[in-house]
Amino acid sequence: MEKFNFSNRRTIRKYSDKEISDEKLYEMLETASHASTTGNMQLYSVIISKDKEEKELLSPLHFNQPMIKGAPVVLTFCVDFNRFTKWCEYSDAIPAYDNFHSFISAALDTTIVAQQFCSIAESEGMGICYIGTTTYNANGIIDLLKLPKLTVPIITITLGYPADVPEMSDRISVNGFIHKGKYNDYSKNDIYNIYGYKEEMQENKKYIAENNKTKLAQVFTDVRYTKENNIHFSKEFMNVLKRQEFINE
Amino acid sequence: MEKFNFSNRRTIRKYSDKEISDEKLYEMLETASHASTTGNMQLYSVIISKDKEEKELLSPLHFNQPMIKGAPVVLTFCVDFNRFTKWCEYSDAIPAYDNFHSFISAALDTTIVAQQFCSIAESEGMGICYIGTTTYNANGIIDLLKLPKLTVPIITITLGYPADVPEMSDRISVNGFIHKGKYNDYSKNDIYNIYGYKEEMQENKKYIAENNKTKLAQVFTDVRYTKENNIHFSKEFMNVLKRQEFINE
Repeated sequence: MEKFNFSNRRTIRKYSDKEISDEKLYEMLETASHASTTGNMQLYSVIISKDKEEKELLSPLHFNQPMIKGAPVVLTFCVDFNRFTKWCEYSDAIPAYDNFHSFISAALDTTIVAQQFCSIAESEGMGICYIGTTTYNANGIIDLLKLPKLTVPIITITLGYPADVPEMSDRISVNGFIHKGKYNDYSKNDIYNIYGYKEEMQENKKYIAENNKTKLAQVFTDVRYTKENNIHFSKEFMNVLKRQEFINE
Repeated sequence: MEKFNFSNRRTIRKYSDKEISDEKLYEMLETASHASTTGNMQLYSVIISKDKEEKELLSPLHFNQPMIKGAPVVLTFCVDFNRFTKWCEYSDAIPAYDNFHSFISAALDTTIVAQQFCSIAESEGMGICYIGTTTYNANGIIDLLKLPKLTVPIITITLGYPADVPEMSDRISVNGFIHKGKYNDYSKNDIYNIYGYKEEMQENKKYIAENNKTKLAQVFTDVRYTKENNIHFSKEFMNVLKRQEFINE
């Protein structure tokens, strides 16, 4: 068996017809659960969507990104303080996890186990894609998946065997994101050294032109992650935390 | 080379004297950066603390947990929208990432890269420990590490070669945290089936007695994660998000 090469990974958005058995899926989730977790509380739940109808209902909540309907398995990773709270209540203990601090701890737990699951799946020859829209429409996902209070969906992963091997995505150099001892803030020159290569990539030049912009960053600020959307989804998600009783005011 | 066994991992709190070279550390961080990231924005920075004095200053901010001073390397993973925002500003783009939605996206990014780093380190025979107190004293860490606005420390990892091989930590069974199609809320019986084994573990019986409690959950609610602390640190962290300009109100 070969050692898994973490540096050679790529996100997989197109999946072959090959199914993933429940047995295999549970085995990988079990393995992932050995990842670190706050105080061994395991503050997460994973909703498994494999049926065609389940995926069709999830799809519009993720802006109809084709990976949802195209993947054999969709996993929604949820912050979950409901299960732990119930355990406390049934143990003559008085829990108080309906607060922002508890949400943050559980969100770290949930993300850690999700990423561990991704590495395990990739080491098994499968491919994954993070669907970055889970917190955008968390309200609708809560309704669809019948999520009780003290649970919040934060990550969705599509899973399957790769239909093809896409190009690897570029990354800034390691010197662009590490700091020795303390944060060394970035000069204009630093920023050019870190991001300059992106502007020169052929695919980015095409992408900038398609969006009628002159610089890559403008595609981010004006098209992909706009002020209007950021403000809208900030309010939406804060309301979700209130609805699910992690923020009480 | 042997395939890394994800299910056999354990948290390492005691480290040998063996150093980790900068070269090896940067190589692992570079590899970790190939993990998934929102829109390829890489919304994180990593502060590396290796010097004795740096670790001594960090230690009280983590309630003097001995891993901080005892590990050859301490890494503080920070949400970072500062670098990306600067890139936008230097590219004639108008960024608007001073909001809660952007914080959440960056927190997912940061946690994903941190966990990927942990798996890489473990696959290289090193050991890690998540220090779960980073969000408790984020204010002090921001001061010490000179973190600018739009950055927030959320995860600290201690890293080194294991001095010993501790027992593996228990986990609830996979059926305890998965749900098919939708969330199936837990009955009292479900909760006993999921958590019951913990009450029977010899080390937990000892732990309950040491804390003068009758049930394990009471150690969590009354000693480890109390209402008073949860409320206090909720306010503190919300104030940190305001200070770092992710929440404006």
